[in-house]
Amino acid sequence: MIIVMKPHASEKSIENVVKMIQDSGLSAHLSKGEEVTIIGIVGDKSKISNRNLEIAPEVDKLVQVTESYKLTNKKFHPTPSVVKVGNTEIGPDTLSIMAGPCAIESEEQLLTIAHAVKAAGATILRGGAYKPRTSPYSFQGLEEEGLRYMKEASSETGLATICEIISEESLNAAVKYVDMVQIGARNMQNFQLLREVGRSGLPVLLKRGMAATIEEWLNAAEYIMAEGNRNIVLCERGIRTYETSTRNTLDISAVPVLRAKSHLPVIIDPSHATGVRAYVAPLSKAAVAVGADGLMIEVHNNPACALSDGPQSLTCPQFEDLCQELKPYADLAGRAFR
Amino acid sequence: MIIVMKPHASEKSIENVVKMIQDSGLSAHLSKGEEVTIIGIVGDKSKISNRNLEIAPEVDKLVQVTESYKLTNKKFHPTPSVVKVGNTEIGPDTLSIMAGPCAIESEEQLLTIAHAVKAAGATILRGGAYKPRTSPYSFQGLEEEGLRYMKEASSETGLATICEIISEESLNAAVKYVDMVQIGARNMQNFQLLREVGRSGLPVLLKRGMAATIEEWLNAAEYIMAEGNRNIVLCERGIRTYETSTRNTLDISAVPVLRAKSHLPVIIDPSHATGVRAYVAPLSKAAVAVGADGLMIEVHNNPACALSDGPQSLTCPQFEDLCQELKPYADLAGRAFR
Amino acid sequence: MIIVMKPHASEKSIENVVKMIQDSGLSAHLSKGEEVTIIGIVGDKSKISNRNLEIAPEVDKLVQVTESYKLTNKKFHPTPSVVKVGNTEIGPDTLSIMAGPCAIESEEQLLTIAHAVKAAGATILRGGAYKPRTSPYSFQGLEEEGLRYMKEASSETGLATICEIISEESLNAAVKYVDMVQIGARNMQNFQLLREVGRSGLPVLLKRGMAATIEEWLNAAEYIMAEGNRNIVLCERGIRTYETSTRNTLDISAVPVLRAKSHLPVIIDPSHATGVRAYVAPLSKAAVAVGADGLMIEVHNNPACALSDGPQSLTCPQFEDLCQELKPYADLAGRAFR
Amino acid sequence: MIIVMKPHASEKSIENVVKMIQDSGLSAHLSKGEEVTIIGIVGDKSKISNRNLEIAPEVDKLVQVTESYKLTNKKFHPTPSVVKVGNTEIGPDTLSIMAGPCAIESEEQLLTIAHAVKAAGATILRGGAYKPRTSPYSFQGLEEEGLRYMKEASSETGLATICEIISEESLNAAVKYVDMVQIGARNMQNFQLLREVGRSGLPVLLKRGMAATIEEWLNAAEYIMAEGNRNIVLCERGIRTYETSTRNTLDISAVPVLRAKSHLPVIIDPSHATGVRAYVAPLSKAAVAVGADGLMIEVHNNPACALSDGPQSLTCPQFEDLCQELKPYADLAGRAFR
Repeated sequence: MIIVMKPHASEKSIENVVKMIQDSGLSAHLSKGEEVTIIGIVGDKSKISNRNLEIAPEVDKLVQVTESYKLTNKKFHPTPSVVKVGNTEIGPDTLSIMAGPCAIESEEQLLTIAHAVKAAGATILRGGAYKPRTSPYSFQGLEEEGLRYMKEASSETGLATICEIISEESLNAAVKYVDMVQIGARNMQNFQLLREVGRSGLPVLLKRGMAATIEEWLNAAEYIMAEGNRNIVLCERGIRTYETSTRNTLDISAVPVLRAKSHLPVIIDPSHATGVRAYVAPLSKAAVAVGADGLMIEVHNNPACALSDGPQSLTCPQFEDLCQELKPYADLAGRAFR
Repeated sequence: MIIVMKPHASEKSIENVVKMIQDSGLSAHLSKGEEVTIIGIVGDKSKISNRNLEIAPEVDKLVQVTESYKLTNKKFHPTPSVVKVGNTEIGPDTLSIMAGPCAIESEEQLLTIAHAVKAAGATILRGGAYKPRTSPYSFQGLEEEGLRYMKEASSETGLATICEIISEESLNAAVKYVDMVQIGARNMQNFQLLREVGRSGLPVLLKRGMAATIEEWLNAAEYIMAEGNRNIVLCERGIRTYETSTRNTLDISAVPVLRAKSHLPVIIDPSHATGVRAYVAPLSKAAVAVGADGLMIEVHNNPACALSDGPQSLTCPQFEDLCQELKPYADLAGRAFR
Repeated sequence: MIIVMKPHASEKSIENVVKMIQDSGLSAHLSKGEEVTIIGIVGDKSKISNRNLEIAPEVDKLVQVTESYKLTNKKFHPTPSVVKVGNTEIGPDTLSIMAGPCAIESEEQLLTIAHAVKAAGATILRGGAYKPRTSPYSFQGLEEEGLRYMKEASSETGLATICEIISEESLNAAVKYVDMVQIGARNMQNFQLLREVGRSGLPVLLKRGMAATIEEWLNAAEYIMAEGNRNIVLCERGIRTYETSTRNTLDISAVPVLRAKSHLPVIIDPSHATGVRAYVAPLSKAAVAVGADGLMIEVHNNPACALSDGPQSLTCPQFEDLCQELKPYADLAGRAFR
Repeated sequence: MIIVMKPHASEKSIENVVKMIQDSGLSAHLSKGEEVTIIGIVGDKSKISNRNLEIAPEVDKLVQVTESYKLTNKKFHPTPSVVKVGNTEIGPDTLSIMAGPCAIESEEQLLTIAHAVKAAGATILRGGAYKPRTSPYSFQGLEEEGLRYMKEASSETGLATICEIISEESLNAAVKYVDMVQIGARNMQNFQLLREVGRSGLPVLLKRGMAATIEEWLNAAEYIMAEGNRNIVLCERGIRTYETSTRNTLDISAVPVLRAKSHLPVIIDPSHATGVRAYVAPLSKAAVAVGADGLMIEVHNNPACALSDGPQSLTCPQFEDLCQELKPYADLAGRAFR
């Protein structure tokens, strides 16, 4: 950490900061410029409350030079991680396709879709049993009944399964039925839930909060990893901006940025990023081209009657066509389609 | 709800939409323009899945004409609500000042601050026992021990008390010790928690999510009210924008907007909105002038050693000065300082 | 346009709006719901000041159902446009690569880069002679001298050329030397300049303003087209969001959105979108995969000494490698590399 | 400026950076931490291209420690500036009210409004003669004819006058008729226009660009000041965010932030910030309470027929009421109403 003093700060103020640093058992390193003096802190900065130096006399600002996330940081773990999910894995050699309905509506609906997405090339079945909805009057999911259908669909098709959890209760249910849990955008900083998922050891898909910086996102993953769970996959699903022609703005640059900062796999969800079915196919190709490790795509056997997110869901034939179109892109990226 | 058809949509497509509406037991009302046909839906629109009409052939877009929140909506409850909190109340006739430390650090710290803010004019003591922190390595709060100190401070000073809760467990603890619970920005769409707070019946301060629209915020309040709890106060605490000279951007316009849309009281938190102590006083005055029902202000007996958010905390004397400065503004606004 | 009345608006208020519409020579079409009455306007809405109905008694809101841009609208011109630039063209069958330095620094520099990008596969040479810089103390460009070097580079290599203009004066100079002019993000709503470029008839690359919606962008293009100039190419170059790990946030979804709304070609500038060299290659591939008609990439023979935007510039060999990598993506997209 | 090296950067890379700094005639100051080495640059950093050190081997990032704006910076000019406009002035002792129609529509309209706002307490008449409009099909202003009416209104009422300029041509016209020119949000980074206004010496109101940071805004003012014109007043008019219930989001914190960073006066425009008439009064009070030096408010004698921005305009009686309400706030702020 660096402390930048105000222009022409007094000796007394500079000495005061140096003393605060030394009193914390750290070393201070001064650099006096013509206008401005800069003080570097050498040592384990967790020993010093970083925020409060800001209000010492004549301090202009603090500058962080190291990241607060450690376990998720590429600097300390340069090799890309591979996360096993059921009988498949997510990592640098594969293009993992997660597909299925936004919400599980019935046994029949889920099995129909599961067979279709399996045939098309998906390896992981997604389906929502606990739905966080903006309005309390919208459909909220089948809960544990939905999870049972997921297990059944997995037995029938061999697909691995993923389901969003929204509370300790839903996590406790999910561990009995599915291979991977998802923490949705709205819960990305539900730190209690992050810790519980960390303790469960279960593979987890951590979606980016809709206003989260990449640094906050990696810190959220750090909460999970700090509990000993290394099986984390990140999912970019669009961020909130002023643009309204798509539901969110897909921050596709997050993929190369995360490659530079972290070893965790990252996938893209073009369905939630745009909210519009017609944009899912072009953005899926872009996701593979930019280097994502996988995709999460909403598929429904009858989108016109879907209880949630119908307008952004592909039909089963549309999903099959998309998988065909994606194959040459996976080849170019050197990834196997599984 | 209105369905806008694409220009020169075919009769068949128009009839298809009309049939979908009528099949749901609703009436359709056509308005044929020169270019565009518009179809209004008359009746209870919850009978029709609004999203999926979007993907019917030749539909251009859907337009909502009524809000999804009902219980929090001023249209159906025009009188401003008053929320009782301990021995005080929040509403149109008062200026309620909530003050105290970001995090409760010790019994002595809390009691010192409680006496100081009481003397200055605050009516509600704030203090964090469960701290949601971006990094897992930051101080996370004293938990139930902190809540006990809150109860003690209340007994000694007569102040009402408020504490943030972050999970069902912390809610269950809080109901035993404090008069009001706070749902923080990161949990604004933790719907499970909203429902539990709704069932508790406890007065609740619902902070705005950092990327939440006002409409989403009112829908979050609707989750609480739908469980029968009408004791809700909203708190604007800054939204996330591209500007970095303040921690967040205080959306002060939210106060008049909420006055127009809802009957719930609304207060402003200038400490979290800016993250900078020097900006707290001018923004507090602005908050009273714009018509807020109260303020939440961080105060610490020794900000330079605060375990959380020191740089934005006022010292006790600074808080006392601010209260003096605010009094004529409260008078102008026709509000009693309690 | 639709006028939504407040719930239970009086007959008098409804009649007042109907009368305002009829007095403007338009027809009003009423749709009375249980709570809300909606009034559709039939006819040429330009006859009525749309904004002011908003403040008529008991009007809740106005809803636009048609777009304000006409000439750039796909609804009225469904075939994709092709724009000729010098000896090349930009449109659905080609992948057009514009490459060159951010700022033209010398004759030698420009010619070196021009030969390199030509050899690698670019068809259009970019180079800045007039530089809009955030600080007045930064390098502002060689102006007309730079334009002369562009013409020379074009003669030597056969490349078409593009240069940003920032004023009527620079436009008047540019028409003498280059094949296409660029309107930069900061001038996207410099309507005076848009009109002048419209009158010039010159091919124009219109960059998206950093906080412009897609609708505002198409309206800016409409200013140019309304003057009779149809030779417009749009360029997505990143929008401003809260995320700071890239200079801007590339809104890659803008490509499929524009395909749905407009007939104009659209290219992507990954250099300005990210500001980081290492992210240019993955985003370039994504741009081709998502369906862009071309790319604008900053290339410098010695980025370490570039007078502007060095950190985001590719070296000549890096650009050559990138072109090789892009070719199979162009093939997949069915586009010729020219 | 500080250069942060990557963790465990090699001696060679560190020496390379030091050499680059020394070769530019500056001094380098090393601070070696356990993980990270930091290199401070001592001397006039304009001698070194700041951007390109970023791409030297093993450099992690650059950190600016001094601002790029100098003349507008409070550090070098701590006393608040006072700007004379016609027979009045804007500065720390006054509350300056600029009022008038968005667009000048006729001689009669302007004179009617001018007399009304004068009587109510305004000191500066605003009126748009050149209107930058999103759509080319909207009313674009009376141009020089409108300016003549401004001069006439000034003669009749004694009010000082302000008018937006959008080009060199409109600037040349404006200098003949009005006391102050306005650079609108869309032209905040039209650097050519900034320089011309700088050369004119005329008092200038510089509105914040709708996605401009405060730092970019001060750099834009620096363009004007660098040409020798110190008569600059800043105007906060709302920034673009994701929130849609107001046209823009008023960044009221900009006032205390600017007080800390600059000596220039700053006013607030609540009309454009919200786009809604009912929100103008509460935000005006907040603006005075937060410490703004003035307000710019749209007033129209007949908003229902205004050619531009009717819904956000106050009627003349509403403006008179507002001025009465503002007076005690001006008193509290220690400002004279002139």
